[in-house]
Amino acid sequence: MDMKFTIAIIGTGNVAWHLSSALENAGHEILEVYGRDIQKARQLSSRLYATEPQDHLDFTESKANLFIIAVSDQAIAQVAEAVLLPERSILVHTSGTMPLDILSYSSADFTGILYPLQGFSKSREVSFEEVPFLLESEDKETLKNLKKLCKSLKAPSHEIRSKDRRSIHVAAVFAANFTNHMVFMAESIMKRQGLDFDILKPLIIEQMNKTLLLGASDAQTGPAVRNDINTLENHHDYLSYNEQLAEIYRNISQDIMDSH
Amino acid sequence: MDMKFTIAIIGTGNVAWHLSSALENAGHEILEVYGRDIQKARQLSSRLYATEPQDHLDFTESKANLFIIAVSDQAIAQVAEAVLLPERSILVHTSGTMPLDILSYSSADFTGILYPLQGFSKSREVSFEEVPFLLESEDKETLKNLKKLCKSLKAPSHEIRSKDRRSIHVAAVFAANFTNHMVFMAESIMKRQGLDFDILKPLIIEQMNKTLLLGASDAQTGPAVRNDINTLENHHDYLSYNEQLAEIYRNISQDIMDSH
Repeated sequence: MDMKFTIAIIGTGNVAWHLSSALENAGHEILEVYGRDIQKARQLSSRLYATEPQDHLDFTESKANLFIIAVSDQAIAQVAEAVLLPERSILVHTSGTMPLDILSYSSADFTGILYPLQGFSKSREVSFEEVPFLLESEDKETLKNLKKLCKSLKAPSHEIRSKDRRSIHVAAVFAANFTNHMVFMAESIMKRQGLDFDILKPLIIEQMNKTLLLGASDAQTGPAVRNDINTLENHHDYLSYNEQLAEIYRNISQDIMDSH
Repeated sequence: MDMKFTIAIIGTGNVAWHLSSALENAGHEILEVYGRDIQKARQLSSRLYATEPQDHLDFTESKANLFIIAVSDQAIAQVAEAVLLPERSILVHTSGTMPLDILSYSSADFTGILYPLQGFSKSREVSFEEVPFLLESEDKETLKNLKKLCKSLKAPSHEIRSKDRRSIHVAAVFAANFTNHMVFMAESIMKRQGLDFDILKPLIIEQMNKTLLLGASDAQTGPAVRNDINTLENHHDYLSYNEQLAEIYRNISQDIMDSH
């Protein structure tokens, strides 16, 4: 049996933007969107079917049963304290960093976390079938509801404690943000020399396939894992035009040598 | 018109291993394999159609016209000086780091570089159609021959000067070895906490798709590019159990902030 939620979205950033359309496409109703800046709330509401924008946190008259806080980490506590909710509401936040008890000062009867493990950019469509959600709640019924919500998005979900969610978030920074920055640095080295970055693309694709298939330990190649000190020094000298880049080269190479 | 080469492979490492079967599959003849250790030369020869193993560098009686040095960077100069070749031979090395003129002390009439831009592991099949070769030679005819060789492997090839090849090699270390190590670090963080690494796989796949599609600059997300100092400090504290890891976290985050 499908369960349809009536939802209010609190926030107008990238997560709010992508999540609200996905939820609507999955058959849920987005009744309200809150933005401190009413213009932004209007912008987002206008992309949804029948959603009211509002710039105050009084939801006592709302018909929603699920309230999703999707604001910056720093603003969550303040919003949770200020928001006025109808009875028997579920209040969740979507942060990978903030603990569950940051919602404990709210008036919500039930609280939880609905953290989509994905980096969101406005310019890029998100396919939620590929986004695992990390869920948390002290209330079993709420947890069940959040799982159903993920299922309606066809997204995988995992029940994760706050402590572990923090570890996963740190790991995700390495796995996504930092892998991306390594490619950024490669781009900058190529660009500086007037070389076409596309030459490297087959290498990157093959490396990631290998990494995910064999595991990163077995998939490591290159001068550091070979203990090829001559090449490491040669590359380090090459990078002397940018001290920070050279230091990152040295640190990561050292860590590869130490780990293998 | 297809051109079939008669080839001797000098070396028995990963590159020699993968390249020799690929060349044979493309219709070329591998006449000899040289290994300082004759056992290794025998091992590799036995996987090929009609190849003689040998542990000396005297090829004056060889019917090969292309001699491919696939030994460690440190050994190339020594091998090039010692190898005895028939007249009108082409001698190439396969290194991303060593310049062309390292072959200038050899007795070869023609020299060149045939550098496959890929990390090779024994355990993983290589599809050469996905491996760009970086080519170099001062002789136009040799360059043409190397291009034909790549074409026979269905591999893309680029003519690249030694100076640029070095830049590409440094960039490739960031793009492949270091991206892989970021995933390794993510794995280690998950493992330490007893968490299933597979939770992160959809994130990694989506990030790499985004990185290659949008470019790494536009594809960056996460706490550093958001200047989210609280999260950065929180993560840095979390990583205090491993000083080197914490320092790498700080350096890369700083570089992301400086680059955006």
